Amino acid sequence: MTTPFDDDHLREECGIFGISRHADAARHVALGLHALQHRGQEAAGIVSFDGARFQAHRAMGHVAEAFESDKVMADLAGYAAIGHVRYATFGATILRNVQPLFADLSFGGFAIAHNGNLTNAMALRRRLVKTGCIFQSTSDTEVILHLVATSQKNNVVDRLIDALRQIEGAYSLVALTDSMMMGMRDPLGVRPLVMGKLADDTIVFASETCALDIIGADFIRDVEPGEIVIVSDEGITSLKPFDAPKPRFCIFEHIYFARPDSVVEGRSVYDVRKHIGAELARESGIDADVVIPVPDSGVPAAIGFAAETGIPFELGIIRNHYVGRTFIEPTQQIRNLGVKLKHNANRPQIEGKRVVLVDDSIVRGTTSLKIVQMVRDAGAREVHMRIASPPTTHSCFYGVDTPERSQLLAATHDVEGMRRFIQADSLAFISMDGLYRAMGAAGRNPAQPQFCDACFTGDYPISLTDHWGGDEDQSRPHRVKAAG
Amino acid sequence: MTTPFDDDHLREECGIFGISRHADAARHVALGLHALQHRGQEAAGIVSFDGARFQAHRAMGHVAEAFESDKVMADLAGYAAIGHVRYATFGATILRNVQPLFADLSFGGFAIAHNGNLTNAMALRRRLVKTGCIFQSTSDTEVILHLVATSQKNNVVDRLIDALRQIEGAYSLVALTDSMMMGMRDPLGVRPLVMGKLADDTIVFASETCALDIIGADFIRDVEPGEIVIVSDEGITSLKPFDAPKPRFCIFEHIYFARPDSVVEGRSVYDVRKHIGAELARESGIDADVVIPVPDSGVPAAIGFAAETGIPFELGIIRNHYVGRTFIEPTQQIRNLGVKLKHNANRPQIEGKRVVLVDDSIVRGTTSLKIVQMVRDAGAREVHMRIASPPTTHSCFYGVDTPERSQLLAATHDVEGMRRFIQADSLAFISMDGLYRAMGAAGRNPAQPQFCDACFTGDYPISLTDHWGGDEDQSRPHRVKAAG
Amino acid sequence: MTTPFDDDHLREECGIFGISRHADAARHVALGLHALQHRGQEAAGIVSFDGARFQAHRAMGHVAEAFESDKVMADLAGYAAIGHVRYATFGATILRNVQPLFADLSFGGFAIAHNGNLTNAMALRRRLVKTGCIFQSTSDTEVILHLVATSQKNNVVDRLIDALRQIEGAYSLVALTDSMMMGMRDPLGVRPLVMGKLADDTIVFASETCALDIIGADFIRDVEPGEIVIVSDEGITSLKPFDAPKPRFCIFEHIYFARPDSVVEGRSVYDVRKHIGAELARESGIDADVVIPVPDSGVPAAIGFAAETGIPFELGIIRNHYVGRTFIEPTQQIRNLGVKLKHNANRPQIEGKRVVLVDDSIVRGTTSLKIVQMVRDAGAREVHMRIASPPTTHSCFYGVDTPERSQLLAATHDVEGMRRFIQADSLAFISMDGLYRAMGAAGRNPAQPQFCDACFTGDYPISLTDHWGGDEDQSRPHRVKAAG
Amino acid sequence: MTTPFDDDHLREECGIFGISRHADAARHVALGLHALQHRGQEAAGIVSFDGARFQAHRAMGHVAEAFESDKVMADLAGYAAIGHVRYATFGATILRNVQPLFADLSFGGFAIAHNGNLTNAMALRRRLVKTGCIFQSTSDTEVILHLVATSQKNNVVDRLIDALRQIEGAYSLVALTDSMMMGMRDPLGVRPLVMGKLADDTIVFASETCALDIIGADFIRDVEPGEIVIVSDEGITSLKPFDAPKPRFCIFEHIYFARPDSVVEGRSVYDVRKHIGAELARESGIDADVVIPVPDSGVPAAIGFAAETGIPFELGIIRNHYVGRTFIEPTQQIRNLGVKLKHNANRPQIEGKRVVLVDDSIVRGTTSLKIVQMVRDAGAREVHMRIASPPTTHSCFYGVDTPERSQLLAATHDVEGMRRFIQADSLAFISMDGLYRAMGAAGRNPAQPQFCDACFTGDYPISLTDHWGGDEDQSRPHRVKAAG
Repeated sequence: MTTPFDDDHLREECGIFGISRHADAARHVALGLHALQHRGQEAAGIVSFDGARFQAHRAMGHVAEAFESDKVMADLAGYAAIGHVRYATFGATILRNVQPLFADLSFGGFAIAHNGNLTNAMALRRRLVKTGCIFQSTSDTEVILHLVATSQKNNVVDRLIDALRQIEGAYSLVALTDSMMMGMRDPLGVRPLVMGKLADDTIVFASETCALDIIGADFIRDVEPGEIVIVSDEGITSLKPFDAPKPRFCIFEHIYFARPDSVVEGRSVYDVRKHIGAELARESGIDADVVIPVPDSGVPAAIGFAAETGIPFELGIIRNHYVGRTFIEPTQQIRNLGVKLKHNANRPQIEGKRVVLVDDSIVRGTTSLKIVQMVRDAGAREVHMRIASPPTTHSCFYGVDTPERSQLLAATHDVEGMRRFIQADSLAFISMDGLYRAMGAAGRNPAQPQFCDACFTGDYPISLTDHWGGDEDQSRPHRVKAAG
Repeated sequence: MTTPFDDDHLREECGIFGISRHADAARHVALGLHALQHRGQEAAGIVSFDGARFQAHRAMGHVAEAFESDKVMADLAGYAAIGHVRYATFGATILRNVQPLFADLSFGGFAIAHNGNLTNAMALRRRLVKTGCIFQSTSDTEVILHLVATSQKNNVVDRLIDALRQIEGAYSLVALTDSMMMGMRDPLGVRPLVMGKLADDTIVFASETCALDIIGADFIRDVEPGEIVIVSDEGITSLKPFDAPKPRFCIFEHIYFARPDSVVEGRSVYDVRKHIGAELARESGIDADVVIPVPDSGVPAAIGFAAETGIPFELGIIRNHYVGRTFIEPTQQIRNLGVKLKHNANRPQIEGKRVVLVDDSIVRGTTSLKIVQMVRDAGAREVHMRIASPPTTHSCFYGVDTPERSQLLAATHDVEGMRRFIQADSLAFISMDGLYRAMGAAGRNPAQPQFCDACFTGDYPISLTDHWGGDEDQSRPHRVKAAG
Repeated sequence: MTTPFDDDHLREECGIFGISRHADAARHVALGLHALQHRGQEAAGIVSFDGARFQAHRAMGHVAEAFESDKVMADLAGYAAIGHVRYATFGATILRNVQPLFADLSFGGFAIAHNGNLTNAMALRRRLVKTGCIFQSTSDTEVILHLVATSQKNNVVDRLIDALRQIEGAYSLVALTDSMMMGMRDPLGVRPLVMGKLADDTIVFASETCALDIIGADFIRDVEPGEIVIVSDEGITSLKPFDAPKPRFCIFEHIYFARPDSVVEGRSVYDVRKHIGAELARESGIDADVVIPVPDSGVPAAIGFAAETGIPFELGIIRNHYVGRTFIEPTQQIRNLGVKLKHNANRPQIEGKRVVLVDDSIVRGTTSLKIVQMVRDAGAREVHMRIASPPTTHSCFYGVDTPERSQLLAATHDVEGMRRFIQADSLAFISMDGLYRAMGAAGRNPAQPQFCDACFTGDYPISLTDHWGGDEDQSRPHRVKAAG
Repeated sequence: MTTPFDDDHLREECGIFGISRHADAARHVALGLHALQHRGQEAAGIVSFDGARFQAHRAMGHVAEAFESDKVMADLAGYAAIGHVRYATFGATILRNVQPLFADLSFGGFAIAHNGNLTNAMALRRRLVKTGCIFQSTSDTEVILHLVATSQKNNVVDRLIDALRQIEGAYSLVALTDSMMMGMRDPLGVRPLVMGKLADDTIVFASETCALDIIGADFIRDVEPGEIVIVSDEGITSLKPFDAPKPRFCIFEHIYFARPDSVVEGRSVYDVRKHIGAELARESGIDADVVIPVPDSGVPAAIGFAAETGIPFELGIIRNHYVGRTFIEPTQQIRNLGVKLKHNANRPQIEGKRVVLVDDSIVRGTTSLKIVQMVRDAGAREVHMRIASPPTTHSCFYGVDTPERSQLLAATHDVEGMRRFIQADSLAFISMDGLYRAMGAAGRNPAQPQFCDACFTGDYPISLTDHWGGDEDQSRPHRVKAAG
C-alpha cells in the first residue's frame, strides 16, 4: 500500500495470525497473512509445530513470494502455526529480525509474533544483557522471549504472565508452545486481535476480521484488552492477569490502517470512514462540482462526503497498482515529474471543475502538495482539500512508524499554514468530537478518552520509559528498535 | 491486473512506447511502459540507440523490476529508444520472445515493437524459412523483421512498406533505425497508437494517453489507421501507403483494456464506461438497495449505473492488490475457498440487501459464479448481475488472448442459461446498439460497423489466413505464436 | 578438496584467521581464509571492528565467492577482523551456524571463531538453557559465548578464562573485542594456531603458515598449548591459565589436513610426508615399475617413496580440478562409471606395468577400491597399495568429521582383509613407530605419546563427556553439533 | 585452469562432444564436457534430440553447475545430443553466443558445435547480411548455420559441404539433425576430434580421449583432416570432400591445451611433455639442486627434465585450486602481494638452493616475473627458468585466444631481454627442432611442416582473410568475434 518515494502515510507495523489443531495449519496462516498484507509488506514469517518439532520459514518480501514454494510449505508441516507480516521501511532489514521469533527454552520450544511496540524494551534489554542474556536481533519482541526464558516461574503460562507484567507498551501477541497456542493483548488493547473459528471449530487468531474471511472462518469475538486466551487440548481458557483495564483502542486503525472490509472492535471500518466523510461534509461542506477521493484510502470518506452533500463522486485520480517497492532511480528531471508514478489525474473529470479532494490524513504534507498540483494541472478551477482525521501533531510510540515530530506538518503549522503549504484553495480537518461522533460516541470524553488518540492530542496513555528515561537514544526510540 | 487462478478476463497483448531526440530516452520509455503496465505484465524490454550503437535490455516481470538497476539504465544510453510490455500467460515464456526485437540488417540496426497479432504470420514464416531465413523466436513480430531484411527495396522505409503490404492482421508498431523512429498502425487501426510531445517538442509514441501523462507530454493526435509517421532529423513525415482505410477500432479497448484515465480515439475511457453503465441502467434497470462494482474494472460503469438509477454506490467488494503472479500451490480445500485470494465481500454493505453487481464482461463465467456466491454468502437478499458489454461469443485473432470459442460461456449458453450458470437472480448485458450509443453513435451501422466488434458478432474485418488456411495448427493459431 | 560422492577422506573442520591494528583488516582476513580454504569449503565468515561498531558477513560457499563483492568488503571496514572457514558436509548447513559468532555482551561486543570440537558442549548447553540462555545455533562455539556472557568475573579476559576452564575438547580460538584480539589453544594443543607479523609489526593469527605467506607475513611462533595470547594497545600479552599442559598435537594434520607448504609445529609438512614415504619404502618396499600417487594428497609421500626405492615417479592418475560440490544426479549407470568424475588413469604410464600406488589413508575403503580397479582397467600388471598412515581404526571427537567407527574399514578388517576389499595385489601401512620416526622421534612413547593419535590407537587424551555421559545423543556426538 | 588476474597462458577456445543412439545421451554429453572443462570454463551447452523435438540448455559457468539440475537434465531427453564448452574471457559473454547453436531450417532442425575459428567469417557475414540474413549472435559459428540455411543444395549433407567449401579457418565440428550426427575437421586438421565407442557400439565424438575415458568409451580413431563422419540409421559413413589435405595439427595442443592423460594424434600428451623436458635438459641442462615445476602445466616436462639430469624433482610451488573466476577486488597493496593467490612457494624445498623452474610457455611474461620473484623471496640461491616450448612470437587466429602481438614478450625481446624481464639467472627455450624431435620427428620440415606452429614461426597455413582483407576491424579479428 506504500512506496518509498511518493507516499506520505503513517505505516502500520505488523499483522499476526495463528491457528491450532488443523491439519493444514501453515497454509491457512499463509492465507491469513496474505489478507493482512496491508499491515506489513517488508517481510513475512511462519513457525509451525508438528507434534515433535518446530519449523520456521522467514523471508523478505510479500507473503505470496515468501511462501510460494511447495518445498517451503511442505517443510512447514504441522497442526499448529503462527505467522507475522512486517511493514516496509526505507532502510535494510535483516532477516533475523523477521518474526515469529523462536527459541528452545528449558521447558521446550516457544514461538512468538508481535504487533505493537514496547516502550521500555531498551531498559529491559540492558538489564537482561547485564545478567548474561545474548540477543540475536534488535527486535523488542526478543525482550519478551528472554523474560520468559529467565523467569523463575514453574510453567510457561506463569512465565509469560511474569514477562507481560514487566513490559510496557502496546502489544497484541500470538504465541505457540508444544502444548498450546495463546493470543493476548496489552491492558489498554491498543492493537487489534480477534478470534474466529472454522466450521470444524478450529480456533484462529488474527489482527483483523478480513483474515478470517479469507479462510472462511467465523468471527467469535475480540480478544479483550489485558486478556490471555489459551487454546490447548483442554479447550479454550481465558486469563485476565491485569487489574481493571481501561481500553484505549488505536483510533487510527479505523482511519487508515485497517482494511475497509474488516470489522474492528464491533464497527465496520468502511462504515466508520463513510460516517467520517459525512461528518466532515457537515462540518466543512463547500459548494463544488465533484468529490474526488485520493485513492485508495480516501474512497469511503469521499463516498460519505458526496452522499451527504449531493455533489457527484468521481474517480478523478487513477492509481497505478503496479508500483512496487523499487523503480528506476529517479533523475532530478524525473523527480520533478512528481507524484505521477503512482497517481494520474483523470483529466476529463477535472477540467474546468471545482474539486473537493478527500484524503485520510496529512503527515508531512509533501504528497498532498503534489496531488493538489496534479489536479490543478489537469485544469481544476478550485481545489478544496478535506481530511478525514484531525491534524496529526504527535509521534506514535505504540507500534506505528511515524516521522519525528518536527517533520509532522501539523506540529509546526496551523491549518491556514498547512493550506498554504499544500497550495489548496481551502483545507479542513474533521474535528476531534466529529471523529468521535463518527465512531458512535457523543464526543471525546477528556476525562477518560475512549480511544488512544495520542497522535492527534499528545495524550499518551502508556508511559514512554525508553523515550523519557534519560537514555541517549531517547530522541527516536521507535527507530532504533525493530518494532513488532 | 490479472492472476492465474482467479481471474476471467480477456488479456490485452502488449503496450508500446517510443521517444526520439531526447537526452534521457530510455528512462522516459521505462516510465511510459510503467503507465502501460496494465497492457502486459509478463515481460518488458527497451532498445535504445546512442548515435553509434543499439543497446537492449529485456526481462521477465514488471517494468519496475526489469529497469530497476542503475547499471541497466546506464547501459541503455542514447537519445532514442522504443519499448514494449507483454501480457501474462499461464505457460512459460522465453526471453528471446520478449520485444522489442532487434537485428543488424544490411542498412544498419533495426528495432521493432508490436502490439497486435498477424493473421498470416505462419504462412509467411514457412515461405521465409524455405528461402533460408533463420528464426530465433516464435514471435510473429520476427516475420516483419525478416520481410524487411529480405526486401529488395532500396531504403528502409520502402522495405518496411514492402513488408507491411505482405502482412495481414492488427498491428500498431514503433520502429527505430539509426536515423529515424517510426510509428504506424494497420489499415483498420484496430490497436491504438497516439502521438504526443514534451515541452521541448520531443516526439513520443504510446499505446495510450496515460503514458503521455506520466512524462508530462501533451497529446497531439492519434496515429491514423494505415498511417506511417516518421520522426527524423528532417522533422515529422506522414505516409499513407494503403488505399482508403475504413477504420475499425477495437471496441473492447474502451470496455476493458484501456486505462480509465486514457483518452482513446477522442473519447474519455472513463466517460464511455459511465455512459455504458447509464445505458445499461436504462435498458435493464431494477429495483435494488445498492450498486456494487466488481473491482476494479467495473467501477466506472457502476458509478454510471448508480447515478442513472439513484441507487447508492458502495464498495461492497474489496480487492487485495497484493495478489501477484504466484501464490502457494492451492490444495483442493483452499481451492474451495474460492475467489477470496483477490476479492473479499464487505459484509456490512451487503447483508440483507438487494445487490446490483456491475462487471465489464463475462468470459468463461467461472469468476462471476464465485463472485455471486461470495456476495450471497455475505448475506445478500438478491443478486442481480449487469454486464457492461454484449455477450462475448467469439475469439479474437487481432492481439487479444481469448480462450477457444468452446470455452466462452456466451458461445454455448443463451442469457438465461448464463444466468443459471452464474446463479444470479437476474442477468443482463448491454445491447449492441446501446454500446454504440454509449460511444456516441446512433447505433451500430451493420453495413459498415464503426468498430471491430468481432468478439461479440463474429464479424471479422481482417482475413484469418493462418486460421482457415489449411494449416495443421489452424485450430489455435493465436496460441502457437507469441503475439506482439 | 572433497566432493560428495567420490571421495573418502576425513574432513578437517575449520580454519581460523585474525588480524589487528591494520587499516585493511578484513581484506587480509579474506586472503588468509583463502589460503586456508582446504580446511573448510562449506562456508566462510568475517567479523570486523572499526573502533565503534562490529560488522559481520557470513555466506555459504568458498571464500572467493563469499567476499567477492566490493560492497561486502566495504561494509567490513575496520582495523581488526577475525574469520573462519567451515568444512563441507553432506547435509544442509544453516547460515546461523556459520562463524565467527558474535554477541553484544554486557561489556561490549564479542566475536569468536573456533577450530576444534568441544566434548562436553551438550552437557554445558543443557545447563545453560536451564538458567534461561537462548541458543540461536547448534554450534558448540555458542556454548563458549554463553559461558563468557554469564560469567560473574569482572573483565573479559577473566570471563574467557572462566569459560575455558569449563569446556573440554580440542580448540584453537581467535576472539575479538572492542579493545583486544586474542588467540588461544586448548591445553593439549590438538589443533594448530600460529602467530605471524607483517613488515609493519601488525600481528596475525592463523591456523597454518600458508595463510601467513599469502599476505607476506613472517612466522613468529606457534601459540602454545594452553596459552592465551592477547593483542591490544598495550602490546602482546601471554597468559597460561592452565596447569602444566602435555602437548598432544594432532598427527593427522601432518598426514593429510595441513597444506604441504605449511610449517606445522616446527616441521615442513611436505618434508614430513616425504619422510613418511621413505619410511614406508623402507618398511614395505617392493619391486615395481612405477610409483604413482593418488592425487593430490599422496604426491609428497610418493616422491619420497620413489626417491628411496629408485622406482620412477609418474603422474599416472590425473585429477580433474573442476569437480565442484555438485554434479548431475548420477543414474545407476553413471554411478557404475566409478571414480572417474574426479580421477582418470593416464593409461600410457600404466599399461603393462607393475604399479605402486601411494595414498595418505584409507577411511571406508570405497575410493581405494575404485582407484585400484581404474588402474587395473588401464592395463596395470600388478597394483600395490602403500598407505602413508597407520590403519584408521577410531573416530575423532576433536574437530575432524569421521564416519562412525563401524564404517571405518580398519575397524572391522585386518590388513589382509583390507587388501582383499580394495582388491590390490599387496597392501601396506606405515607402522606407528615408522610414523613417529618420520616426525623426527625415535618412536612412539606409549607412556606419554608425543601426538594425539587417537584415530589410530583409540587413546583419547581428552574426556568424551557428551559421548559417554548417558546422553541419548551419545552415539554420534560429533554429528548432532555443528563443530567449529 | 585460468584466472583473470594472475595467469598468463594462451587460452584454448572450446571443447565439443557428441553422442548418438544412446538412451541417456545428454547425461553422457555432460560427463564428456566435464572431462573437457579445461578447454573452456566460461559457458557450456547441450542440444538433444528425442526423435520429435530438439531441446537446448545453455548456461554460463562450469559444466557441473550448468547441468546440475534434475529438471534441466530431464528436459534434455533424447537419444542424441551434442555439447560444447567455451573458454573464459575477461569481458562479459552473452548467453546467445553460447553453443551449440540451433536453428529450424527448411529441412528440419540443425544444431552445431564448433571448436576453432573461421578466418573469413566477417567477410561471409557481410555477404549474408546483404542478402537478408539476420544474425542473432556474434559467433562465427552462426555463419556456418546461415550458409547451410541458404544453400541451394538438396540435402543437408550437400548443404553442409557447400558451407564448408566457403569457410576458411580451423574447425572441428559436431552437428546434429533429426536423422544423423556428424563430426568433421577442417582440411588441415588443426583442432582435434576423435571417435570412440561404448561397449554397445554407440558412437561418440570428442575433442580429446580423456572425454572417452570418463564414460568408458574405447578410442576408435581420430576424425581425419578434411573428413566428415556421418552417424545415422544406416551406420557410419565417411566423406572426404576436400582435395588432398596436408595435415597441420596444432602443436600447442601437445604443449599446453590437451589434458596430459589424453592421447592426441597417436601420441600420449604426458609422454610428449616428458620428452620435451628431456630434450630441454639435453639442450640447456644446468647444474642445480632441485627441479621445480610451475604447476600444473609444467609438471610432466619437469619430471622429464629431472629424470634426464638426475636433479631431484620437488613440488616447490604449491597451487591453490580454490582460485575461481572471481575474488575480492584487489587493492593496490594486495596487488603488490603478487602471484600468491594462486601459487605459494614451499619454502623448505627452496631455501638456499639452486632452482630450475620448468614452465610450458611464456606469453606476456608477467606471471614468470612474479614466480621468479616468489622463488627468490623464498630463499633460492639461483633461479633458472626452462621453457617447454619455443618463444611465442605470433598471435593465433585458429581458435586460441592470444594477446595482440605487441603484448607477446617474445615478439619484442630476444631471449636475453626476456631473461632480464623475468629477472631469472638464466633462461632457455626448447629449440624448434628439439620440439619436433620430442614429437617423434627428426626435426621440423621447413618445406612442409608437420604441425601448425604459427605461434612460434608466423608461418600461417590458412589464409587470414578477415585479418588482411582491408576491414576496419582487421587489427584484432580474433576479438570482435566470439570464436567457437
